Amino acid sequence: MTRPLDVLALGNAIVDVIARCEEDFLVHQGVAKGSMTLIDEDRAESIYAAMGPATITSGGSAANTVVGAASFGARSAFIGKVKADPVGDLFAHDIVASGVAFGTSLAREGKATARSFILVTPDGERTMNTYLGACQDLSEADIDPTTVQSAAVTYLEGYLWDPPAAKAAFRKAADIAHAAGREVALTLSDSFCVNRYRDEFRQLISGGTVDLVFANEHELKALYETADFDTALEALRRDAKRAAVTRSEKGAVIIEGRKTFAIPAYPIETLVDATGAGDAYAAGFLFGYTAGLGYEKAGRLGALAASHVIQKIGARPEKSLKVLAQENGLL
Amino acid sequence: MTRPLDVLALGNAIVDVIARCEEDFLVHQGVAKGSMTLIDEDRAESIYAAMGPATITSGGSAANTVVGAASFGARSAFIGKVKADPVGDLFAHDIVASGVAFGTSLAREGKATARSFILVTPDGERTMNTYLGACQDLSEADIDPTTVQSAAVTYLEGYLWDPPAAKAAFRKAADIAHAAGREVALTLSDSFCVNRYRDEFRQLISGGTVDLVFANEHELKALYETADFDTALEALRRDAKRAAVTRSEKGAVIIEGRKTFAIPAYPIETLVDATGAGDAYAAGFLFGYTAGLGYEKAGRLGALAASHVIQKIGARPEKSLKVLAQENGLL
Repeated sequence: MTRPLDVLALGNAIVDVIARCEEDFLVHQGVAKGSMTLIDEDRAESIYAAMGPATITSGGSAANTVVGAASFGARSAFIGKVKADPVGDLFAHDIVASGVAFGTSLAREGKATARSFILVTPDGERTMNTYLGACQDLSEADIDPTTVQSAAVTYLEGYLWDPPAAKAAFRKAADIAHAAGREVALTLSDSFCVNRYRDEFRQLISGGTVDLVFANEHELKALYETADFDTALEALRRDAKRAAVTRSEKGAVIIEGRKTFAIPAYPIETLVDATGAGDAYAAGFLFGYTAGLGYEKAGRLGALAASHVIQKIGARPEKSLKVLAQENGLL
Repeated sequence: MTRPLDVLALGNAIVDVIARCEEDFLVHQGVAKGSMTLIDEDRAESIYAAMGPATITSGGSAANTVVGAASFGARSAFIGKVKADPVGDLFAHDIVASGVAFGTSLAREGKATARSFILVTPDGERTMNTYLGACQDLSEADIDPTTVQSAAVTYLEGYLWDPPAAKAAFRKAADIAHAAGREVALTLSDSFCVNRYRDEFRQLISGGTVDLVFANEHELKALYETADFDTALEALRRDAKRAAVTRSEKGAVIIEGRKTFAIPAYPIETLVDATGAGDAYAAGFLFGYTAGLGYEKAGRLGALAASHVIQKIGARPEKSLKVLAQENGLL
């Protein structure tokens, strides 16, 4: 019998290669600050050669989220594809060491494990250049029905629309989840990603494939092609069953039907590296949501987790989020 | 014509796999806290499997030192062996991106790039478990005479005594340096390493193979098999031309003949990860020494660099040490 899960995440399995850089470097490299740009192998080599000394940590948006949820105490699993190379081994090691079940087979041949070359500017903003590599080999065959059926929420990242075969895996997972009476959550991932797949994302949300939407302000505006936040939020309210929209230091807004919950951000001392802020927010929210703690508490847990990961290098928590939540009187 | 160098370092080229752990973990794993233990491939797999989520950064004692020296502004080069695998690529990328010339060929076959599994306890102390891998393929053939001849100081790590062929490379480099009228520096590396090679290290120092010795208090006591620091220091004074001995928060003592310079440690806010403290000290000292700034200033630069690297995860500087020294009125 499969152990019941709170959160199953499906996403691109990526290691982050993180270096600091000056603003000029982004200009010279011609990359859009704050975004995620897809790159090929040649471009990966040239950007890596130009980057400063780097640190390698496990990353991947949905993977970061499920590791965070597990750190709060959620029963968690992840599906995503890496190759059996030294950085793929790091990814697999870290996710298991974080208490997340990970049963996807490592590719023995084919493209290398995906790497995101992340440039962190002095203001703490991160700009990502991602070589998808082995993520392109994630397919429907990697979706284990009993795992999906056992999860209260299956969490999918919008980035899965980039590798062609992953889209089918995404749809298969969503179908199995709903057939089992489970819920499906989606993060819009990145405003450029929204621009690439706007119509499909809107269809997923308004068509009922998705029960819970995560987005930041920029992604939401991109989704509804408006510069006005309130206009975008009302459009989302019509389309989505429920959603959590993050606005950096302005906090987050959770909506469900006519209900609205505005939750402030946690104050921080220094923004060191914004990588993983949205992922951590989703982690806290999903933990609170699946534990039945209510939107107010779920939102606060998300905000707390985000405040933790942006005050250090890398996207994953450095200490137990459960302990952090207890220290802050949330659990 | 070869560009003149201030510092050439020769050492084991290692990537650090760093994870936090509780004190209990060290006890269960049976490792001596604060030391460097050599491990084989099987042991590497089992300790890695038991470790928590990890961060991978470039390491290697002498490599850390030469990167630090370059960060101060020293003209620097490194000789050491990695394999052409993803973590070997990281090592090569980082050292070049740090402004250090690196001409050693990457191994295309044979053992994987060396990894040190570093466990950081809540008190900030680090315990290292090192799989030497490709470092065992460093040999005399990797010593380029013109590079050695061009360097004011050739800096060698005691750890080179562990991989058998590296010892010959070490001796060849020292011979070439002296024949060219250059100086040779040695770090004793680790007290367990000193216990393994005590007689040879004492012979290197008293026999004139080494002109400048770096040691910490524990290594020095191990070298002269005494529990008394002053006894050990006087023994070193007799044997060595000059030496810098670090004593953690008690600062460092520099000796040359009858002269003694006691330099205090820089105050720190929080000890996050002691990895690389001694390496950074040697970096600052070697920069000051080769720049002719005198022992007092060289010692202060070493202490400053050490205080920087122990307040963050990983052994290498996170900002320009030249700028840090300027901010502290040392340059």
